[in-house]
Amino acid sequence: MPEIHVYLAQGRSLEQKRKIASEITDAIVRNLDVAPEVVVVQFIESSRDSKARGGILFSDRDKAAKANSRP
Amino acid sequence: MPEIHVYLAQGRSLEQKRKIASEITDAIVRNLDVAPEVVVVQFIESSRDSKARGGILFSDRDKAAKANSRP
Amino acid sequence: MPEIHVYLAQGRSLEQKRKIASEITDAIVRNLDVAPEVVVVQFIESSRDSKARGGILFSDRDKAAKANSRP
Amino acid sequence: MPEIHVYLAQGRSLEQKRKIASEITDAIVRNLDVAPEVVVVQFIESSRDSKARGGILFSDRDKAAKANSRP
Amino acid sequence: MPEIHVYLAQGRSLEQKRKIASEITDAIVRNLDVAPEVVVVQFIESSRDSKARGGILFSDRDKAAKANSRP
Amino acid sequence: MPEIHVYLAQGRSLEQKRKIASEITDAIVRNLDVAPEVVVVQFIESSRDSKARGGILFSDRDKAAKANSRP
Repeated sequence: MPEIHVYLAQGRSLEQKRKIASEITDAIVRNLDVAPEVVVVQFIESSRDSKARGGILFSDRDKAAKANSRP
Repeated sequence: MPEIHVYLAQGRSLEQKRKIASEITDAIVRNLDVAPEVVVVQFIESSRDSKARGGILFSDRDKAAKANSRP
Repeated sequence: MPEIHVYLAQGRSLEQKRKIASEITDAIVRNLDVAPEVVVVQFIESSRDSKARGGILFSDRDKAAKANSRP
Repeated sequence: MPEIHVYLAQGRSLEQKRKIASEITDAIVRNLDVAPEVVVVQFIESSRDSKARGGILFSDRDKAAKANSRP
Repeated sequence: MPEIHVYLAQGRSLEQKRKIASEITDAIVRNLDVAPEVVVVQFIESSRDSKARGGILFSDRDKAAKANSRP
Repeated sequence: MPEIHVYLAQGRSLEQKRKIASEITDAIVRNLDVAPEVVVVQFIESSRDSKARGGILFSDRDKAAKANSRP
């Protein structure tokens, strides 16, 4: 307690997750006055075929962006 | 806001997820009067070894169904 | 299976939730070919003091918007 | 680690939640060989206006059941 | 994207949640290079009767701690 | 209803998950007086690079533990 879930599309690096886990834990410890060892951070990543914004899968948004960037 | 999580056993097609993401987003936009771009849909899929109904993993239910359907 | 969670700030009406639950369930049944009775939709609502966008709680965003709309 | 979330419609008693938290923790400790103190169980309850099965809110299902049970 | 859920027992102040939402968003923006406006933080709080550690509800842990602190 | 999510770092065996799903379902059925077929258990597992305790990823904790155990 507390537990933090970070919902992401896949593709972030180990180093990015390492830093986010550390900084979120620091924010929780500093503000809630709890021991670091009770803070759990879990990244719940889905493939870009399994996450959407605006009703369009990220994998489809990627394709549309690529098509639009062609000269 | 809002965010929608769809918890599934693995095995659904890209086309199924594409349509569900689109239709859920439409339902949210139509009923809550929000812009599509603030609606996020994430599918959180677990393998059939990692999801159960009635206390029995889907992978075990599959095997039982197969055995029952033998002549 | 499947289970759908809709994460919201509080303040939506019963009628809005009734329609969203019905329309999401229809989208799932239509696309995944499952019986309606296995589809569960749960709204997980937090107060406007407990949800943030852009690092700012919705309750604080409300106040800022109000201040900005003063003549 | 691990963390267990139990998603419920409101209306369960303190005693029911006390027993479930205890028995789920026992099951985790026994099978995963972890210390009880790292096991967290959180009940995430929504009102019967905010949870649906078969596309129908539990509060509406309650009313339908009541109507059907009239002589 | 991304969305962050913070699971807590009830009892934290508005100011604590305001700071945590701001600091988690900063950590995400800084490390993932996304715009602040796409970052959503939601606190999902349960009463101390609805969250347990070590198989014991927080409300029962509070009582035990109180009893132990009596001279 | 109810739905149970078990958040884990990857690495548990099929047999461990089979037993946990069965025992959690038993606990729910026994205490809430519901039919087993409405109880869903889903394991949501993240790699050891995607889960942290005390602000340190499990994969980094593994390395530190290994280093400390060298003679």
